[in-house]
Amino acid sequence: MTAKGPGALLEKVRARRPLVHHITNYVTVNDCANVTLAIGASPVMAHAVEELEDMVALAQAVVLNIGTADRMQLRSMFLAGARANQLGIPIVLDPVGAGATRFRTNASQQLLKELRIAVLKGNGGEISVLAGAGGKVIGVDSAGTGADPVNMVKEYAKHLGTTVALTGAEDIVSDGEKTLLVSNGHPLMGGFSGSGCMAASVIGTFVAVSSDRVEATAAALAAFGLAGERAAKTAASPFSLKHAIFDELCNLSPKDLEKGAKIRKA
Amino acid sequence: MTAKGPGALLEKVRARRPLVHHITNYVTVNDCANVTLAIGASPVMAHAVEELEDMVALAQAVVLNIGTADRMQLRSMFLAGARANQLGIPIVLDPVGAGATRFRTNASQQLLKELRIAVLKGNGGEISVLAGAGGKVIGVDSAGTGADPVNMVKEYAKHLGTTVALTGAEDIVSDGEKTLLVSNGHPLMGGFSGSGCMAASVIGTFVAVSSDRVEATAAALAAFGLAGERAAKTAASPFSLKHAIFDELCNLSPKDLEKGAKIRKA
Amino acid sequence: MTAKGPGALLEKVRARRPLVHHITNYVTVNDCANVTLAIGASPVMAHAVEELEDMVALAQAVVLNIGTADRMQLRSMFLAGARANQLGIPIVLDPVGAGATRFRTNASQQLLKELRIAVLKGNGGEISVLAGAGGKVIGVDSAGTGADPVNMVKEYAKHLGTTVALTGAEDIVSDGEKTLLVSNGHPLMGGFSGSGCMAASVIGTFVAVSSDRVEATAAALAAFGLAGERAAKTAASPFSLKHAIFDELCNLSPKDLEKGAKIRKA
Repeated sequence: MTAKGPGALLEKVRARRPLVHHITNYVTVNDCANVTLAIGASPVMAHAVEELEDMVALAQAVVLNIGTADRMQLRSMFLAGARANQLGIPIVLDPVGAGATRFRTNASQQLLKELRIAVLKGNGGEISVLAGAGGKVIGVDSAGTGADPVNMVKEYAKHLGTTVALTGAEDIVSDGEKTLLVSNGHPLMGGFSGSGCMAASVIGTFVAVSSDRVEATAAALAAFGLAGERAAKTAASPFSLKHAIFDELCNLSPKDLEKGAKIRKA
Repeated sequence: MTAKGPGALLEKVRARRPLVHHITNYVTVNDCANVTLAIGASPVMAHAVEELEDMVALAQAVVLNIGTADRMQLRSMFLAGARANQLGIPIVLDPVGAGATRFRTNASQQLLKELRIAVLKGNGGEISVLAGAGGKVIGVDSAGTGADPVNMVKEYAKHLGTTVALTGAEDIVSDGEKTLLVSNGHPLMGGFSGSGCMAASVIGTFVAVSSDRVEATAAALAAFGLAGERAAKTAASPFSLKHAIFDELCNLSPKDLEKGAKIRKA
Repeated sequence: MTAKGPGALLEKVRARRPLVHHITNYVTVNDCANVTLAIGASPVMAHAVEELEDMVALAQAVVLNIGTADRMQLRSMFLAGARANQLGIPIVLDPVGAGATRFRTNASQQLLKELRIAVLKGNGGEISVLAGAGGKVIGVDSAGTGADPVNMVKEYAKHLGTTVALTGAEDIVSDGEKTLLVSNGHPLMGGFSGSGCMAASVIGTFVAVSSDRVEATAAALAAFGLAGERAAKTAASPFSLKHAIFDELCNLSPKDLEKGAKIRKA
């Protein structure tokens, strides 16, 4: 296990138990809280403008998820994000549904423009639309990715100066220089609500303990995917799989992750 | 299996995978998302006034649920509903807690007055109060239904020009002309939070693929109830039953539904 | 089983099925609803200022939880609390995250000052900070309790004129005169999101049927902890434990509780 390997990063998450501050949607918020606990970190959800500066200062990562955002929640995201940037705390942005409505596309673009985002994580449709590479989003589901997604992610990451993660059967993670592909996961993970949101929370816990965003993001996606693979050994349907994933993440050892992570360079 | 039978409708849901736009309460919203996925459709939750017109236009059905509504959320419901009416997209209204407070009763009446609702779905107390037929609601639970509920539902549906579904041990579905009774389901389904909300979401997925509101609503309630019956074979308590229902809905085939649906004319 | 024993109180909850009105956070709200149902009571969540007076009047207890509170939700809490005080309906306050941010600490102090709270329930850090006895809170987790917590809870309860419950490996419940210690529970209960919120909801169901706040709170914490112990017999991880707790609470008989409650005088 190298010092920077996924297992070592998971060990750090468990040892440091970072606080991950979420401003997120009300559909999957409970799953985000529990997945953060399951991996070994500590979640907190807070959006009141009166406390954002205090709460962000306690956190080691901030996750912004626009799944059910409105103007007021976006205001909280900008405030929390500015404070995180000021303190050097990494921000993970999940642009849920970008591409489905102009409001979501614009909100995502604005957050990417006004804040220094550490990791932008989306599905194929969301990332493709934001990158201006085609792609389609219906509701919150990807309905089409631009051509040559690996190159698209790489170019878009370089353009943004941000680590970009496009999740799918094979996840693509790039900062424009280094590009990693993660092939952990299981098809049933697409069958329940919240797998994308949960992945963003797990990424939050890993970037909280490592400044190498690409390695940390790939390790997080490998850990989440591997928990899904292990859950699929006993769970035959998406919903029992979801329940099993929490326990599997809990029980996933650094050694398991180091051995089971399917990460390769693009 | 007739072209309009419940099995054929489920087949259509699976084939078309309609997008069901929800504006709903924050208590059971995750259950609504997952039940929509489990039956084979796609859920999206969105309430920001800036995106309602865009999001509704992508949807094949809209579910409005007043379980934790406030003035701002009601405003979103009226906007989304007006857009859905303009585009001919069916609206399912779940008047959660109507009868418990004047605010909920008035909100429901107002939504019924200003919007063209495709299906109004409530428990015995809610529907009875709204129909002016007596009935009682405490919190969000029915505490009494008016006398002769079948006739009450029929008359109220005729009066409203809407399909009305009163859920209970035997569900009553009527548009004033045709009245169907559905006796699928299991007593344990009343023991967990959200079964009513989940039923409304499933109705949303069926009315999204059929213009015969009465048949579609009855088929949806039969599917949901049948999943409950099947879940009860292994789950002995309400909460494990709830978890099992998602998997059972997922695994319910059109043939299973056609065979197991207990729908009869009143 | 004495008339005031925990088993007798559980019997009363089941017989009267009290309505417990919650104004709570959107992270664990579904768990609060289901735990209230599981113990045998009826939950309702409502925050619209237009309906608070009506809804509170239907309830036998009110639970206020500041886990994701903002200014608007606090306004609803003050309104609901004033109405509950006017009608003599007991209020349980869960000051989630007090001590983590000034906003949460001030909100809790203000609620304690302006409302007559029946039971204040928090973790070690929250209660210690509010009592001015040291203690530390990071996010929503206790990160340190003041010295001599039993005496601290006793003195703080006397000062407030309120029953105070500090939850931990051993729960401390006191009104300044009588002090009870509850040692039911299981370490895995700290591993999932919402155990504290769920405990507050269960307390709400017990204070709804008894004016002896200390006995009722201790009985509620014993019931919740005992369900956790029983769930731990089959569930080896925090998340399967959580799911099992709902069923165990459902199946917990008054006799089980009377026999299994580990309550002693301090």
